[in-house]
Amino acid sequence: MGSVERIKRVADRLIRKVNEGEQVVVVVSAMGKTTDHLMSLAKEITDRPSKRELDMLLSTGEQQTIALLAMEMERRGQAAISLTGWQAGITTENVYGNARIEAIHTEPILDYLNTGHVVIVAGFQGITQDHEITTLGRGGSDTSAVALAAALKATLCEIYTDVDGVYTTDPRVVKTARKLKEISYDEMLEMAYLGAGVLHPRAVENAKKFHVPLTVRSSFSDEPGTIIKGEAQLEKGLAVRGLAFERDVVKVTLLGLPNDLTTLSSVFQVLADSKVNVDIIIQNALDDQETSISFTLSEEALNDALDVLNNHKAALKFRELNVEGNLAKVSIVGSGMVSNPGVAATMFKTLNEEGIKVKMVSTSEIKVSTIISIEQLTGALQALHSAFHLEEVKPLSTVE
Amino acid sequence: MGSVERIKRVADRLIRKVNEGEQVVVVVSAMGKTTDHLMSLAKEITDRPSKRELDMLLSTGEQQTIALLAMEMERRGQAAISLTGWQAGITTENVYGNARIEAIHTEPILDYLNTGHVVIVAGFQGITQDHEITTLGRGGSDTSAVALAAALKATLCEIYTDVDGVYTTDPRVVKTARKLKEISYDEMLEMAYLGAGVLHPRAVENAKKFHVPLTVRSSFSDEPGTIIKGEAQLEKGLAVRGLAFERDVVKVTLLGLPNDLTTLSSVFQVLADSKVNVDIIIQNALDDQETSISFTLSEEALNDALDVLNNHKAALKFRELNVEGNLAKVSIVGSGMVSNPGVAATMFKTLNEEGIKVKMVSTSEIKVSTIISIEQLTGALQALHSAFHLEEVKPLSTVE
Repeated sequence: MGSVERIKRVADRLIRKVNEGEQVVVVVSAMGKTTDHLMSLAKEITDRPSKRELDMLLSTGEQQTIALLAMEMERRGQAAISLTGWQAGITTENVYGNARIEAIHTEPILDYLNTGHVVIVAGFQGITQDHEITTLGRGGSDTSAVALAAALKATLCEIYTDVDGVYTTDPRVVKTARKLKEISYDEMLEMAYLGAGVLHPRAVENAKKFHVPLTVRSSFSDEPGTIIKGEAQLEKGLAVRGLAFERDVVKVTLLGLPNDLTTLSSVFQVLADSKVNVDIIIQNALDDQETSISFTLSEEALNDALDVLNNHKAALKFRELNVEGNLAKVSIVGSGMVSNPGVAATMFKTLNEEGIKVKMVSTSEIKVSTIISIEQLTGALQALHSAFHLEEVKPLSTVE
Repeated sequence: MGSVERIKRVADRLIRKVNEGEQVVVVVSAMGKTTDHLMSLAKEITDRPSKRELDMLLSTGEQQTIALLAMEMERRGQAAISLTGWQAGITTENVYGNARIEAIHTEPILDYLNTGHVVIVAGFQGITQDHEITTLGRGGSDTSAVALAAALKATLCEIYTDVDGVYTTDPRVVKTARKLKEISYDEMLEMAYLGAGVLHPRAVENAKKFHVPLTVRSSFSDEPGTIIKGEAQLEKGLAVRGLAFERDVVKVTLLGLPNDLTTLSSVFQVLADSKVNVDIIIQNALDDQETSISFTLSEEALNDALDVLNNHKAALKFRELNVEGNLAKVSIVGSGMVSNPGVAATMFKTLNEEGIKVKMVSTSEIKVSTIISIEQLTGALQALHSAFHLEEVKPLSTVE
């Protein structure tokens, strides 16, 4: 019932948009616990379902929502039409579970828009050239929305989500977290990649690439949310804009690898070939003969990674493989960081004072990431939020 | 969980068939209460959902089952592939909710069969030439199975269902009901049309048309079930083979119609144009000017029928429309009936002795149907089952 209530609220908003004279395409995800329920059915059968069949299963969730939302629109007298990913012309590469959109054939959508329909598209899904159903992976509905906005040259892409905007960090963990009024695509990318959980990085990447103006706002209120746009228009000079973090981090270490030029590329090529995403990578050469490589990845990708590494053990020539779980990643993000060399030092000092051991470090121009024990995550976030004065409004003209 | 258990049991059976050297295509329906759940979500939104959107919604049920069954087959090391209706090449006419299959493009299925896959097809659904998802209506999965068996020239089409065969009548209502070993396509058609509920008439029609050998058997046991085949091979000379019945019958009466030649055809043409199925029809001319027409249909079709009749009230020129609900249909079925003129009389006498008023009568070569009050249904069935000695094995060599 909660789900149908939510559909009615979405319909309210859509009808308001139509009454304002807008042509509206809406991308929806599965309702409430539908995806979890489907996943649990699959898990009842096997821990390792085929990705093709999992996409076949999971894509039904969005298909249910589009049908129900179309019914609700029609009940209110608004012409509307639901389209599955394949009906909406969303073609993807030939990869299950995590496919990238290759093209969108917009004719069907444009035809319906031009005949006064609100077009309701199933997010998270597409179809390959061989007519196979694929899903886009995490945050797939956001990605569908941005890709459609780009293909249709939409004037605005609004992402409605459980939260009312992008915060300096997760307000459920750090009570003093504040909502940002604006954030750049790049900062948002770091925040999203690092687990801020508001918006999928692929969606932000596509928005940046195709100059799609994005807003992130709450589906439960009319608050304005956070605007995500090009960096030029943003206030600079801010060292740290937010803290991102990620749970479910696992560290894999390969010991006794040959210390030659091809080792690093070989390891990550076999992982990439199997579409295993790794995050932080550290290589540590012990001597001229041997080296070790550590990398982090999400817990969910671990089985695939172990499979592919063990299958290639002979070719890669590693002696031993270690796994360390129960880790978390904490990152500070801000485009002003590049001109503030002391920022990383402040981060390490703060963690050190809290007695938190940093197990891995990774840096980019606009972020510093650390891997720590998951038990220390909350303490780390609170200490860093305070150390970088993120709870204060003052120095940041771009923060409301 | 009950649902996943059932999927495992289906997988057992499929793997046994494969081990016997068979190429197997399996058509599945939605799990347990999935369709009811989806329907209740739609009803939360509106009592009159658009049929297109309802098909979009309901077709997800079968898509879930095919994916889960394919996972289970793969888990056991058996190559398998799930195909939605549209992936399996099942094209239908342009009608939502009750579409007829127009063609099956068998290439994808044959390709997978020839590479050693068990092919798992979503029943109950198809696609129009305009890429719209349609469903086949009640018993749609049976229809899909028979149509696929015909298109693939299968040696046998087994229908697994909740019951272990075709009975003289519903054993839940009449305790002495017995399972039939064989029944002819025509008798089965009458039994099915009249609500025996085992197999959809369209499935039987297609089986008859394309000479597909059918068996109906239980998905819970290895009992042989009931064979449905051409009449020639069956024992004749049996007056009544079974009792069929139907609940949820509604009678509609149009009063004050002009008594001219076109009235009857006009009324049923507008109903047919809107795909409203009517069952028993009675016309009663009161005088040269006026006539009345009564017909029965299922409760579920009533709204559509009332809509279309009221929309055409001026053209059809009826004065008044009456609806009588809470009715049931009881029929005696048997191919030997045509040579036994006393059968109908025995039926009416039996009902009369039970104090049951017959409101409408309809006859064919192999059945006599009566419309009675639904409260009297059980009594009528018990009395008729006994009056026609259906509980006795003796005189029927084709009954086990």
